[in-house]
Amino acid sequence: MTTVAFAGPVVALRFEDDVLVALDQTALPWAERWLPLRTADDVADAILRLAIRGAPLIGVAAGYGVALALLTDPTAAELERACAVLKGSRPTAVNLAWAVDRVARAASGAGDHPPLAAAALDEARAIHAEELAASDALASHGAGLLGSSRRLMTHCNTGALAAPGRGTALAVVAELAARGRVELVIATESRPLLQGARLTVYELARLGIPHELIVDSAAAGLIARGAVDAVIVGCDRVAANGDVANKVGTYGLALAARAAGIPFVVAGPTSTIDPACPSGAQIEIEERDPAEVLGAASEGGRAELAPAGTRSRNPAFDVTPAALVSALVTERGVVRGPSVDAIATLLGPR
Amino acid sequence: MTTVAFAGPVVALRFEDDVLVALDQTALPWAERWLPLRTADDVADAILRLAIRGAPLIGVAAGYGVALALLTDPTAAELERACAVLKGSRPTAVNLAWAVDRVARAASGAGDHPPLAAAALDEARAIHAEELAASDALASHGAGLLGSSRRLMTHCNTGALAAPGRGTALAVVAELAARGRVELVIATESRPLLQGARLTVYELARLGIPHELIVDSAAAGLIARGAVDAVIVGCDRVAANGDVANKVGTYGLALAARAAGIPFVVAGPTSTIDPACPSGAQIEIEERDPAEVLGAASEGGRAELAPAGTRSRNPAFDVTPAALVSALVTERGVVRGPSVDAIATLLGPR
Repeated sequence: MTTVAFAGPVVALRFEDDVLVALDQTALPWAERWLPLRTADDVADAILRLAIRGAPLIGVAAGYGVALALLTDPTAAELERACAVLKGSRPTAVNLAWAVDRVARAASGAGDHPPLAAAALDEARAIHAEELAASDALASHGAGLLGSSRRLMTHCNTGALAAPGRGTALAVVAELAARGRVELVIATESRPLLQGARLTVYELARLGIPHELIVDSAAAGLIARGAVDAVIVGCDRVAANGDVANKVGTYGLALAARAAGIPFVVAGPTSTIDPACPSGAQIEIEERDPAEVLGAASEGGRAELAPAGTRSRNPAFDVTPAALVSALVTERGVVRGPSVDAIATLLGPR
Repeated sequence: MTTVAFAGPVVALRFEDDVLVALDQTALPWAERWLPLRTADDVADAILRLAIRGAPLIGVAAGYGVALALLTDPTAAELERACAVLKGSRPTAVNLAWAVDRVARAASGAGDHPPLAAAALDEARAIHAEELAASDALASHGAGLLGSSRRLMTHCNTGALAAPGRGTALAVVAELAARGRVELVIATESRPLLQGARLTVYELARLGIPHELIVDSAAAGLIARGAVDAVIVGCDRVAANGDVANKVGTYGLALAARAAGIPFVVAGPTSTIDPACPSGAQIEIEERDPAEVLGAASEGGRAELAPAGTRSRNPAFDVTPAALVSALVTERGVVRGPSVDAIATLLGPR
């Protein structure tokens, strides 16, 4: 475990010399600490304690975890054990189970021979490469759409710390910055877990993109006063009609953007579109531990902001109606004014 | 300095036995500590370090401060000195200078005799009584307006800790609760200074009013999902046309309330209406110390939430257009759909 501080794009994960090296997100932004993960159990532990977070990033890491297990013990028994350990680390993460199963299938092949570590590693690398390509494609589509927006606002963390490559909404921001188009990014702190203050600001600083951190409730007033040209956010789930579930606070930004007449853009891979979900009304809003509202992560550890026992409520997401979404940016392209038909066309025949 | 914990309405200030006893707001919500203030310098110090805060509350305290000075040294020199010390404690607070001058005038009378401590104390008590009556009148008007709203959302702190009596918006909530009409109050934490989490929740708990604390960005989504029947907030300045400047985040609540079709009510004394200010466009938005965004008050003192040196921006207020304000509640009555004419009628001939 070493500490390295340097500028440049954040790479949350890299695989080299049979070691998965992961940036410890629990230490950010206070320290850049790299974790060398040598076994499936190391990977599972890093996922469990949120050193690696973000569904797509977890999936890639878990894929490598299966390969690491087989590199030391290429047996069917070890494969089964490693898959169980990895899937158990964040049982509700769909990407994780999907990636683990995909790598396990590749290692096992069709026959009865012992699983092949090399095949597992190739598949883990393939998943990683696919995610990188998707992020780049999404970034390019988004930058084409927002080429005239010099000042952007974003919410939560949607960069390289959340998804492989450059992420989703923040990948678009990074691409625009690479094209010399970004004057300012306003990042919301994103209470209660402060992904904006802790992670987005860290990524923007690393990328050398001019930015300002604000409290969440300052966003609407700044939008009204013309402080930004567009708002771009990620998405956790998109319904078939284009309604968007995303980090709590997104809906308020969409209302303010519409009132100010500026674009409100949602970026995410097509895998976040759920054609089986007709509209936002069918999206269940996860209520997280109310204790998160009573405190905050700080340099000195958790800080208590309200007395223990204070009653609180902690919806993790909100739903933005499709009517407020100017465009949906995916790795396959852009849907302007999302609708049932436009989204079905994007996804193509199934 | 003693610690007393008990239930019941919060009384932030009381004057008894020639001592001004003030609830130390810097210790809340972690401890209820009463400060016995025996001199003008004690009062000035308490105001300076925010143990007493909220413009109307500061005004009342400073009025008593003048009387305290004259109780020990009823001379013109001491009067002059005490007034200067008190006015210097928060030089930008208009109420403070106004109350100090009013009490000083009453003590001096028209003649050349030494200032009269008894006259000063009478005037300080008169200011206090006027503010209490105004708070009660406002609460009664607001409760009449919102009698059918069982679930309310409020922002920042507008209760007994901000203004004498029961406050403004929170006074309306307290009056509705006293009439048995309140099922739930949702209080926003109100970053960056957490007046909601630290003070409003404390007041609601003391009053026994059912409440839930949320992060600011959860408000819009909860309003959209029908979690409350109305939103009620205070105001820092109201323009002649009804545009409202208030704690940052207010505008976002107004947008969400309008989108959900629920009342958005603003409560404040007529002294916050500025007939010389035509509209919100002329209201300058104070930008406070950006460092406030990077940290938070916590049980253990200030907690650092983002690295020192992070660029941040900290607008203290935002402007809500009159078109989004369902009603303005004052001590003189209610203005539904505020407009230039309706507000001029409320204020009467000048």
